[in-house]
Amino acid sequence: MMMAKALLPEVWTEILVPVCAVVGIAFSLFQWYIVSCVRLTADRDASEEEEKNGNGEYLIEEEEGVNDQSVVAKCAEIQTAISEGATSFLFTEYKYVGVFMVLFAAIIFLFLGSVQGFSTKTQPCTYDKTRTCKPALATALFSTISFVLGAVTSVLSGFLGMKIATYANARTTLEARRGVGKAFIVAFRSGAVMGFLLAANGLLVLYITINLFKIYYGDDWEGLFESITGYGLGGSSMALFGRVGGGIYTKAADVGADLVGKVERNIPEDDPRNPAVIADNVGDNVGDIAGMGSDLFGSYAESSCAALVVASISSFGINHDFTAMLFPLLISSVGILVCLITTLYATDISEIKAVKEIEPALKNQLIISTVIMTVGITLVSWIGLPSSFTIFNFGTQKVVKNWELFLCVAIGLWAGLIIGFVTEYYTSNAYSPVQDVADSCRTGAATNVIFGLALGYKSVIIPIFAIAVSIFVSFSFAAMYGVAVAALGMLSTIATGLAIDAYGPISDNAGGIAEMAGMSHRIRERTDALDAAGNTTAAIGKGFAIGSAALVSLALFGAFVSRAGIQTVDVLTPKVVIGLLVGAMLPYWFSAMTMKSVGSAALKMVEEVRRQFNTIPGLMEGTAKPDYATCVKISTDASIKEMIPPGCLVMLTPLIVGFFFGVETLSGVLAGSLISGVQIAISASNTGGAWDNAKKYIEVSKLFMCVRESLYGEKISEERALRIVK
Amino acid sequence: MMMAKALLPEVWTEILVPVCAVVGIAFSLFQWYIVSCVRLTADRDASEEEEKNGNGEYLIEEEEGVNDQSVVAKCAEIQTAISEGATSFLFTEYKYVGVFMVLFAAIIFLFLGSVQGFSTKTQPCTYDKTRTCKPALATALFSTISFVLGAVTSVLSGFLGMKIATYANARTTLEARRGVGKAFIVAFRSGAVMGFLLAANGLLVLYITINLFKIYYGDDWEGLFESITGYGLGGSSMALFGRVGGGIYTKAADVGADLVGKVERNIPEDDPRNPAVIADNVGDNVGDIAGMGSDLFGSYAESSCAALVVASISSFGINHDFTAMLFPLLISSVGILVCLITTLYATDISEIKAVKEIEPALKNQLIISTVIMTVGITLVSWIGLPSSFTIFNFGTQKVVKNWELFLCVAIGLWAGLIIGFVTEYYTSNAYSPVQDVADSCRTGAATNVIFGLALGYKSVIIPIFAIAVSIFVSFSFAAMYGVAVAALGMLSTIATGLAIDAYGPISDNAGGIAEMAGMSHRIRERTDALDAAGNTTAAIGKGFAIGSAALVSLALFGAFVSRAGIQTVDVLTPKVVIGLLVGAMLPYWFSAMTMKSVGSAALKMVEEVRRQFNTIPGLMEGTAKPDYATCVKISTDASIKEMIPPGCLVMLTPLIVGFFFGVETLSGVLAGSLISGVQIAISASNTGGAWDNAKKYIEVSKLFMCVRESLYGEKISEERALRIVK
Repeated sequence: MMMAKALLPEVWTEILVPVCAVVGIAFSLFQWYIVSCVRLTADRDASEEEEKNGNGEYLIEEEEGVNDQSVVAKCAEIQTAISEGATSFLFTEYKYVGVFMVLFAAIIFLFLGSVQGFSTKTQPCTYDKTRTCKPALATALFSTISFVLGAVTSVLSGFLGMKIATYANARTTLEARRGVGKAFIVAFRSGAVMGFLLAANGLLVLYITINLFKIYYGDDWEGLFESITGYGLGGSSMALFGRVGGGIYTKAADVGADLVGKVERNIPEDDPRNPAVIADNVGDNVGDIAGMGSDLFGSYAESSCAALVVASISSFGINHDFTAMLFPLLISSVGILVCLITTLYATDISEIKAVKEIEPALKNQLIISTVIMTVGITLVSWIGLPSSFTIFNFGTQKVVKNWELFLCVAIGLWAGLIIGFVTEYYTSNAYSPVQDVADSCRTGAATNVIFGLALGYKSVIIPIFAIAVSIFVSFSFAAMYGVAVAALGMLSTIATGLAIDAYGPISDNAGGIAEMAGMSHRIRERTDALDAAGNTTAAIGKGFAIGSAALVSLALFGAFVSRAGIQTVDVLTPKVVIGLLVGAMLPYWFSAMTMKSVGSAALKMVEEVRRQFNTIPGLMEGTAKPDYATCVKISTDASIKEMIPPGCLVMLTPLIVGFFFGVETLSGVLAGSLISGVQIAISASNTGGAWDNAKKYIEVSKLFMCVRESLYGEKISEERALRIVK
Repeated sequence: MMMAKALLPEVWTEILVPVCAVVGIAFSLFQWYIVSCVRLTADRDASEEEEKNGNGEYLIEEEEGVNDQSVVAKCAEIQTAISEGATSFLFTEYKYVGVFMVLFAAIIFLFLGSVQGFSTKTQPCTYDKTRTCKPALATALFSTISFVLGAVTSVLSGFLGMKIATYANARTTLEARRGVGKAFIVAFRSGAVMGFLLAANGLLVLYITINLFKIYYGDDWEGLFESITGYGLGGSSMALFGRVGGGIYTKAADVGADLVGKVERNIPEDDPRNPAVIADNVGDNVGDIAGMGSDLFGSYAESSCAALVVASISSFGINHDFTAMLFPLLISSVGILVCLITTLYATDISEIKAVKEIEPALKNQLIISTVIMTVGITLVSWIGLPSSFTIFNFGTQKVVKNWELFLCVAIGLWAGLIIGFVTEYYTSNAYSPVQDVADSCRTGAATNVIFGLALGYKSVIIPIFAIAVSIFVSFSFAAMYGVAVAALGMLSTIATGLAIDAYGPISDNAGGIAEMAGMSHRIRERTDALDAAGNTTAAIGKGFAIGSAALVSLALFGAFVSRAGIQTVDVLTPKVVIGLLVGAMLPYWFSAMTMKSVGSAALKMVEEVRRQFNTIPGLMEGTAKPDYATCVKISTDASIKEMIPPGCLVMLTPLIVGFFFGVETLSGVLAGSLISGVQIAISASNTGGAWDNAKKYIEVSKLFMCVRESLYGEKISEERALRIVK
């Protein structure tokens, strides 16, 4: 079955992929350097300020006569506290996760090795029986290695993201004194550091691993890419713990801090008197940054590996067409370049001058990256693929044209944009859904809950159609390979996606630091505006994560089904139908566990915060300092302890179901949890984002009322303020 | 393919079924008579009181010196207002639904009739081509008739339920003066009236229809039972509107009344000064009684019809074994007798003496009916079925033993009991889940929402396993016939299920009337205790409705797939997988629509109630009467208008998907919405029930604090009160 090879010579592929990855890393470090130019030490800062002020800029503090030096020192101090808290939590988390990683690696090795009784003899290949493949023991060993590499890369992605975020938050605050545009750029650049570092790093490690493994495997690509799948598993299993642990941490701290501080004590959000305030800010970094980083890396690694393993038993692998084989990596490489151009647009070409330009600027990032990436995909599909090839399709080979595969990747990419737009519409306070939710608060918490949940439910409709269309097109054209590359298409602009996503928590922290450092209200206004846009982009990031995860899961499901030798998964058999039913229940079980965990941890946090307010004299007056460390410890302990049961549920279900009820039921369970999980995920994520921004929206309206009253001496009703702001 | 026939001669079947139905109706009327003995006219009441008081009973009013006559008159007046409101709403609803019914009936007739071009010639049967069946035009005509019969029976079931409920609520209030046991009996008997009337009526109409149609169809049972399926469709399509319309009505009124009355004005629930109080009480009757009645009737009719249509093309139908053919009706007939015995246990054998005995008494009803029904099923399976027979199974015939079919019915029945128990555990304030939710309110609405939603999610686990096991067993033994009879098994004790379910809103109304008539606090305590148990039983009723609906839907899905000639519904095809994904989204869409409707209607209600409080002088002081009618109108208009879009979504989706994307995608959509819908339904229903009872639980604790303070002069903390009450 010889077919034409891809136009791009192999040697160019071998150059292009690592070069793009290195360019990405270099760009990321360059952005880091620019961010670091915002000085956090008071002395040097002062001299720099002078110079800049010469250019016609002035600081709000100077205008208001606040001592600049002490503010900077205070910001630096708070940043250090947040950074230390986050680092200490992540180290604790990684210690536990590390134990799991070693255990799991051992299980993988023993399990895969035992398949052929730890034999070191070569054996006939699984799919092409006429050829000889490397021994199962080698696959066991290399799978274990790639699993560890994936896990370490995932952990590293999260950790580095957290580091840059905690490096940038105070700098964003300080820049907010110069104007909202300046602050935006710092926050966005820092997000870009994380985005590019993660995308390029993930690509580079994968590329090097493939090339190193190839030295041993030689022509046995089936074995080579089967062992590479460990990379994806490592990435996504770490992502599970990162997301769950970080998520419990951040929400427990957030709920705890707000309930006592804002609701009971009536002090502002992020007030330094609130004992849980540091834990809250740490949470943003370990949950929304480190957790999100691991999560998106997991999806990225899984989709690349799923595509590679299917390709290895398709004509690319059989013909040893290395360029076509590395098509998924080429897509990601070009993606890095595209995102680089897109980022330059935000940082150097356009400029934010007013608060209301922030959200469009972030939205433009999505649009620009998608449009340019479409060109990129066209190019890669043209030179990186033969004009016609065959793809493994559940036991048979299916002929695919290169333009068909282009469509698969492109539709994934554009579905991502649509999901982004819909998420923005439902979670941004610039549109009516969030405004309606805010409006419903006038009649109390009950109507707010009803409207918020209804909004989340409604927001599922279009993303599901977008995902369904992508699946239909990619599945019809190129079976599971098509679905995997559609996921890759959605994730091809991951650097930009992560940049605008990480931007959110950084701005959130910046606002917190401004409040804690006792900076002017006008600075807090600016950081709040950044933050409101950040809530939306965080929801968009989650939307991407969910959408790509849905596609990846389907591709992995296909890989599982192929490997298990199942020909059909028929809903009209009792085993499959109960599998679907029970599978659809699992996300509820999982959510119940994590929500209960957050609830209990938040209750503990509330009690501790109340205790401190009641027992520490002078706390409310600001004369005594709260005990931040105890609150950090409560969140840490809760999240470490509580991430184990949900983790076990996810890890053990396939093993238990498969072992006791067979692969048919298991395939039902996997499909059921996929189709049910994606709905819950989208609705919950958007309900949360909408509530968060409805809160911001009401705060803005209240602020508006105050300003109006103080300026014109005119008192207007809350209702009217809402209407005017709208 | 001749096989042994059932032991029970055909003539006995022809006697047994109608006799059981008539016994059920007679029993229902007898209960009604007993309830009517509680007099609502002041004069005769007084004389009766005297006589009763001679037996050592006394009334709280007499003890407290309140004028008995005026209280009775007031109760009667309020009851009349509620009854009139409910009747007027239902008439309005039925007017709109009637238009739909006529339209839909016309569509059915035209659609089915056009299949053979309105030919009046006989034709070869669909499944057995060697035989001749009646013309398609006849099937069209008879299907339309049975559709109308089903719709009318459904509407009648709901309407009669509402009538008896509004007849019983004030009587329950009056009996509460004699003790909690007396009040319980009245409420429960009234529930039984509805339960038996609905079960017996549904059975009798179906039985008569079959026998009348048989006169025309003769030996053509395939055509006969295909046209009977219209009965199920009629029942469930009315149920859709009844549930949605009634649900929006009751929730809009409930939320509106509570938000202004309880939260803003700090007046008790059901206070007569609240303008929405009548609408609230009307809502309980049109939503939880009429809607629930239509809903359960719909499930009952659908499962009977699904079983019958499968049986007609199985050996029962082919051999013309009428007894075995009517096996589903025999199950329901025996069910009526079993429920009759069960009801007698509650009304005549046991006696409620204290508040805490109410919930166990209702729970015992479930246990007793399930245990006796198991014997009943054994009997019916033994005499009503041949020892061995074949069942149609997606194109082939499958041999089934009678004990296997017994297991199918029994497992459905017991799965219902398990769902009932789990629902009780998660929604009753006697157990820790609701207590934890109540406890979480100490830290505010946010933790309450988190805990409540988590509780709902968690409560899905066991019911789903119960449903999955029933499906697995029944599907494995007897394919879709097995699933249909499992649903019938779950619904076989429908009379008892409905009795304890309808008991809830009646008690709720009784409490409302007590409050509005200005009766003593001790009476309100009793009705509140009845009501708390009622919230739990209402959730149990919903659990049954959901569980049986899941089974019925699967059976209908099987019938659809068989009829559409689909051999497999393979998840590994793009059409099915996107069908599943989109199908799983539909319940979210539907929920978003109905929740938004409730939210908007509640907002309007809140504004109206606020307006009345602000503009009617003397309203808060109790010197002026509120304008109840406007609030009733708001709920009525909102629910009529808002029930159309969700109704269209449900009705049109299968048509649109089937027409544009084909039957494969449609089968995916149906399966997807089934497996996703059941999860949302269970979790939402239990979250709601738990929140409702957590509220009651907190109110009891507060009452306890007051009592403690007034009796011992000792002030205890809320926390401690909660702990003691626990």
